[in-house]
Amino acid sequence: MRQSVDRTPVWFMRQAGRYLPEYRALREGRDILELCRTPELAVEATMLPLRRMPVDAAILFSDIMVPVAAMGIDLRIDPGIGPVVPDPIRGNDEVWRLRTLDPQAEVPFVLETVRLLRKELSVPLIGFAGGPFTLASYLVEGGPSRNHERTKALMHADPETWSHLMFVLGTSMAAYLRAQVEAGAQAVQVFDSWAGALDPDDYLHFVLPATRELFGSLADLDVPLIHFGVGTGELLPLMRDAGATVVGVDWRVPLHEAWERVGYDVAVQGNLDPAVCLAPWEAVEKKALTVLRRAAGRPGHVFNLGHGVLPGTPPEILERLVDLVHERTEGSAGAWEEGP
Amino acid sequence: MRQSVDRTPVWFMRQAGRYLPEYRALREGRDILELCRTPELAVEATMLPLRRMPVDAAILFSDIMVPVAAMGIDLRIDPGIGPVVPDPIRGNDEVWRLRTLDPQAEVPFVLETVRLLRKELSVPLIGFAGGPFTLASYLVEGGPSRNHERTKALMHADPETWSHLMFVLGTSMAAYLRAQVEAGAQAVQVFDSWAGALDPDDYLHFVLPATRELFGSLADLDVPLIHFGVGTGELLPLMRDAGATVVGVDWRVPLHEAWERVGYDVAVQGNLDPAVCLAPWEAVEKKALTVLRRAAGRPGHVFNLGHGVLPGTPPEILERLVDLVHERTEGSAGAWEEGP
Repeated sequence: MRQSVDRTPVWFMRQAGRYLPEYRALREGRDILELCRTPELAVEATMLPLRRMPVDAAILFSDIMVPVAAMGIDLRIDPGIGPVVPDPIRGNDEVWRLRTLDPQAEVPFVLETVRLLRKELSVPLIGFAGGPFTLASYLVEGGPSRNHERTKALMHADPETWSHLMFVLGTSMAAYLRAQVEAGAQAVQVFDSWAGALDPDDYLHFVLPATRELFGSLADLDVPLIHFGVGTGELLPLMRDAGATVVGVDWRVPLHEAWERVGYDVAVQGNLDPAVCLAPWEAVEKKALTVLRRAAGRPGHVFNLGHGVLPGTPPEILERLVDLVHERTEGSAGAWEEGP
Repeated sequence: MRQSVDRTPVWFMRQAGRYLPEYRALREGRDILELCRTPELAVEATMLPLRRMPVDAAILFSDIMVPVAAMGIDLRIDPGIGPVVPDPIRGNDEVWRLRTLDPQAEVPFVLETVRLLRKELSVPLIGFAGGPFTLASYLVEGGPSRNHERTKALMHADPETWSHLMFVLGTSMAAYLRAQVEAGAQAVQVFDSWAGALDPDDYLHFVLPATRELFGSLADLDVPLIHFGVGTGELLPLMRDAGATVVGVDWRVPLHEAWERVGYDVAVQGNLDPAVCLAPWEAVEKKALTVLRRAAGRPGHVFNLGHGVLPGTPPEILERLVDLVHERTEGSAGAWEEGP
């Protein structure tokens, strides 16, 4: 599955985003969920960064809440805020009433976007879904949360209901990712972005089981499975056990230490601090070279930021970054070895 | 300096806070900065939690921005938001115009609060200040920030100006903490709450020098120096080098691992997830006992949450937590050994 490359591949989380003037123009007057549900527009958004810079992968333009909305949960995405769930899921009843996503019937527009993209693209397409903890946090808190306290309270107060919530979300996202791959996605990433808010005990008991089932059920697919979260330094050995073939790490853990924690038979993706991309190029270059140096000589590094591109990022900085990664690893990058 | 105790001491960051109905009543119609600047009211706020539960320390009621406002920077603290700096510090000029705090002249009300508290209290009083990165982030971003991108951009774009900002803030906070100790504070804590947003390279180069000078200049004081931040798992060995005698850790790193990273000759403070305190008591008890078990047999553990008490916390949970820590460590707690 992992293939030989002659230079380190690079793409950016949220590479089709607000930092691009042409993306802001496309969004003008349009709701993001409308954009995600209109294949022609989602294709256009996905393609925008590729017209500017030779990234080695496209990532489907969508939002982690799209399949959750398709599961019948009323939600919207407010500009500058994020997902808002007017009637948050707090109780037993609401959780047990959730039903698993049927991707073909409920998110056909996403699968159509994937099919259209495959006709346009000359680089691999990465599909994605939210991870179970992150989706649950939006559903339980009703929106973005600094402390995830209602989510954690539910987890500890009613482990059985919590577990059902994790498995409904995990099973749904597994079905969603499988459908994306069947429609043509050549890799998939699970964004359990906020899992790093948990201590390792709670992650192990309350999130890992459903996540392991999610990745386990996709193991027969012949595509890289990427698992990413922010602030996951202490969780990396557990995330490795979840079964992904690539672990994405944020900038807090030096890349070589992250790799030690996940094991060298797993590929790593990351991990330049996205905030650094707002500094002058010289600083960006220096920090990017440190990331490359920490991956030097090892197969299986995918260069990325440690989280999504920030809205204030000058597009030129990312363009130069792509060139830098390609130039500096040309010929010398560890090939992606065949897995065991 | 570290003294023998016959049970594990316990207090809570933000123990005088919005979770207490009597605190909300005291705040009613009052600006928080007004409260901080009125010694009688700040004394009352400090005392509130002690009337409910036998915590082993009081923490001065104040805000990390109080001395910063006293340095001549226009700022306010908005309910539900936090510090707001209408004219953020972005440039060279603004940084070099900053002058060091003169605590006796500029924050006499804080020192008066400390003196009054010492007359009332039968437990030690902990003074505090913000850490240089955290204060700088509020000043540069103009308010709370998820990504600290402008702060990091300044750091990388103009290291000389950044260094000056760090040292002005560090020197000012050192003077502020010394004045608190001279007025009667029996321990001091530096809240560099957001330092965990930095990778270890940037922390080492851009924050540690000023922090080390801060703690170094207080080393002659005969009081525990506590250093705390959130999400600092990767920074703990560096924070240890900064010179504090107690390192506070959040809940993400299991306590025994945190201790290994800071070294066993330093005391540790923490680290129950504050969000867990919104769950039923049985869950809180279980997690708290795990924290105690991970500290068992070692001298120098101060029980605390891994961050401030959350507003939704039932006061009864904290009351039971204090009793639990006392009961379970009675007689068996490692004494705080004399330092080397």
